[in-house]
Amino acid sequence: MPYTQDIETCRETAIGGGGVSAAALDAALEAADPALDRLRGDIEGGRLPALAIARSDADLSAIEETAQRLAASCDDVLVLGTGGSSLSGICYRALNPVNAGPRLHFLENVDPEGFEDALAGLDLGRAGLLVVSKSGTTAETLSQAFALIPRLRAARGADGLAGAAAVISDPPAPGAAPAPLRRLAGEIGLPILDHEPGIGGRFACLSNVGLLPARLCGIDPKVVRQGAAQVLDGLMTGTNAAAIAPALGAALNVAIARERGLTQAVMMPYLDRFAPFAAWYSQLWAESLGKDGKATTPIAALGTRDQHSQLQLWLDGPSDKLYTLIFGAPLGTGPDIAPPESAGPGLDYLAGRRMGDLLAAEQEATRETLVARGRPVRVFTLPRSDGRAMGALMAHFMAETIIAGDLLGIEPFGQPAVEAGKVLARQKLAAMAGRPGGVGPGGAATL
Amino acid sequence: MPYTQDIETCRETAIGGGGVSAAALDAALEAADPALDRLRGDIEGGRLPALAIARSDADLSAIEETAQRLAASCDDVLVLGTGGSSLSGICYRALNPVNAGPRLHFLENVDPEGFEDALAGLDLGRAGLLVVSKSGTTAETLSQAFALIPRLRAARGADGLAGAAAVISDPPAPGAAPAPLRRLAGEIGLPILDHEPGIGGRFACLSNVGLLPARLCGIDPKVVRQGAAQVLDGLMTGTNAAAIAPALGAALNVAIARERGLTQAVMMPYLDRFAPFAAWYSQLWAESLGKDGKATTPIAALGTRDQHSQLQLWLDGPSDKLYTLIFGAPLGTGPDIAPPESAGPGLDYLAGRRMGDLLAAEQEATRETLVARGRPVRVFTLPRSDGRAMGALMAHFMAETIIAGDLLGIEPFGQPAVEAGKVLARQKLAAMAGRPGGVGPGGAATL
Repeated sequence: MPYTQDIETCRETAIGGGGVSAAALDAALEAADPALDRLRGDIEGGRLPALAIARSDADLSAIEETAQRLAASCDDVLVLGTGGSSLSGICYRALNPVNAGPRLHFLENVDPEGFEDALAGLDLGRAGLLVVSKSGTTAETLSQAFALIPRLRAARGADGLAGAAAVISDPPAPGAAPAPLRRLAGEIGLPILDHEPGIGGRFACLSNVGLLPARLCGIDPKVVRQGAAQVLDGLMTGTNAAAIAPALGAALNVAIARERGLTQAVMMPYLDRFAPFAAWYSQLWAESLGKDGKATTPIAALGTRDQHSQLQLWLDGPSDKLYTLIFGAPLGTGPDIAPPESAGPGLDYLAGRRMGDLLAAEQEATRETLVARGRPVRVFTLPRSDGRAMGALMAHFMAETIIAGDLLGIEPFGQPAVEAGKVLARQKLAAMAGRPGGVGPGGAATL
Repeated sequence: MPYTQDIETCRETAIGGGGVSAAALDAALEAADPALDRLRGDIEGGRLPALAIARSDADLSAIEETAQRLAASCDDVLVLGTGGSSLSGICYRALNPVNAGPRLHFLENVDPEGFEDALAGLDLGRAGLLVVSKSGTTAETLSQAFALIPRLRAARGADGLAGAAAVISDPPAPGAAPAPLRRLAGEIGLPILDHEPGIGGRFACLSNVGLLPARLCGIDPKVVRQGAAQVLDGLMTGTNAAAIAPALGAALNVAIARERGLTQAVMMPYLDRFAPFAAWYSQLWAESLGKDGKATTPIAALGTRDQHSQLQLWLDGPSDKLYTLIFGAPLGTGPDIAPPESAGPGLDYLAGRRMGDLLAAEQEATRETLVARGRPVRVFTLPRSDGRAMGALMAHFMAETIIAGDLLGIEPFGQPAVEAGKVLARQKLAAMAGRPGGVGPGGAATL
């Protein structure tokens, strides 16, 4: 497996009264067995393509062709999308920061200053465009596209842009009109890839949404899916929940939160290449389970940095968090960090060491320090920080979240509460007096 | 003032049972008056240079000279430091992303892969070095320096590096030997700026630690301090806590957490240029107040992105958070986002709008949606996202944190719990068998 999971330092036997009791964990694991059966049934029955896609022979040629087409004419690719449409792509980009291909710029917000900052210094004549919106109606993403497309067409011509662009969006329902993004793309000739049906935004990391940016960043989509498939294979064939990592993880989360009143779940990778993974996980966990007053709140962190920022609170603040640390296996790697004589005495502990040794020591020291204070720590270890490991961890946490939802009695796939805010934002925009940026009463610009 | 603070939608009268009652807020404000007196006494008595420095005539010429020296010979500057030594610099960098000066790269971790990734593609012959460690003994920062300095000296020669480097560290105590970083810098001729005495790392944003990176990024240190001084002036001359923004903020935080059992404090800027501010705030709040089982846990977010990631949980998950939103004043600014005819019907709400109008609508919709669910929302509004606003907000939150510490009976300036972890990491490193990265039994490299 591309990772291991160790929950031993979450147990009462290891850390005392802040840990989960054997009885509570066993009860959750017992409930996880039928939850697993339901999950397996959904995967086999075609009701969960977000996971099943990892084991399918799904054709990756559209991703490959699109990536090659964009790479051929782009130094930079502007990726418009937010939430589930951006976070997995950002994870893949971090895996290969020295990628020789086009640079990806993820525009997730609609701050006018940030938008112009992101474009400053780019040669729009060599910039490509990837627009991602599942619904095809996301106000932020549409607005970015409406602002940007005329500039890109001016810089590289209508045909030039079409050759350097792609759109990912849901296919229209039978008989329905296409959504605005899809219609716009069709009208002006931007190639369209389907947002594969039945896959929600935050579960789209193994689909076109995640894997096209991955491929543009030099990460092989096939290897990512292979990593995810290893987790799926274990899930489909494992004998019981305790032996299946995502089920064990779900049971742990639910049991310890209930028994010890935990309200927060910290996700702290120690690997820079997995830094954005904590943000991806935070959306997955929060949006899937934040319903009916339930769910712990995810907190994204980064080691070693947050040892110098959050650790004081974690050790001596309220005991209300489950800590998930992601370790690398860096022993003996990296540059020499041996102290020069000119630094003087007191540094013997660094003598003969490499940077990876220090990272290994810091990882373990953080775990032990938390444990000494009775705080529950779960550890994932990644032998390699590559696309296979990313695919595996993403599959793990998607399965863990779905199983946790089952244990909590929460439907994990919707996000009904945010719809009201979207409607309200549109109403506010429509009702603004004076239309200060007005382009005329009809309001329709032409592209 | 470079900002306004609005706490109205935190009150019980506005949001019902999740809001703070007048009685609870008044009680906290009453306690804040003597806390304010103590804070004023500390500032006037020279015991709080972290804040007082904003109103001093402190000489900024060392920052100016160092910045000019580095800018003259560097395309890139590698900044080694972590926690309080990096987070404020990262905030300033975000204010001017199109800076024509050298690019700053903050190396905060000791992941060997991340370290090499950060260096990849840089011309070390045109790279400068800034090493920041208050104590001069930070293991991560020393290790980075030991790994990097030989490479930089190889690329640009010993004198070349000295001309393109600077170190910020505490001056040695009278009669004491200099700490390793300071000794190393002295031995190999790297210019040293003092970490101004009496200023802790996370309170160092208005000192050399924050303002040298600021200046390198084209942000005027004087203007930052002017922004902070406006807050300080209000604090020194205000008549009572309710009329002084940081005192009101501290009272609100303490009162609502106590009365309503809140455990978390979300910080969500809607301005990309203030995105790293949430991480800076998170360290300040967590490390200052995370003691004796007290303090709410800070959570860094970013609008509009986290509307598509965390908002579902905030609306329908547990009611256990105070939300602080930072709004811009973007109405009528930014590019046109009017829908083209080719996008089809259903987009009238965007007609005649600019991107800033959408941001304004999103900001307000988020506040109103949270309020409709009875969640407490505090709003800061920044007329401009510049150095003055950053200085003012940093001074606000330093004062708010110190006053909250007083109200909670917490000493905000230490971080005693993390010391055990630092010792443990060193012990682990020293005890590693085999010394896999060994450079010989003596372990002393030469620079």
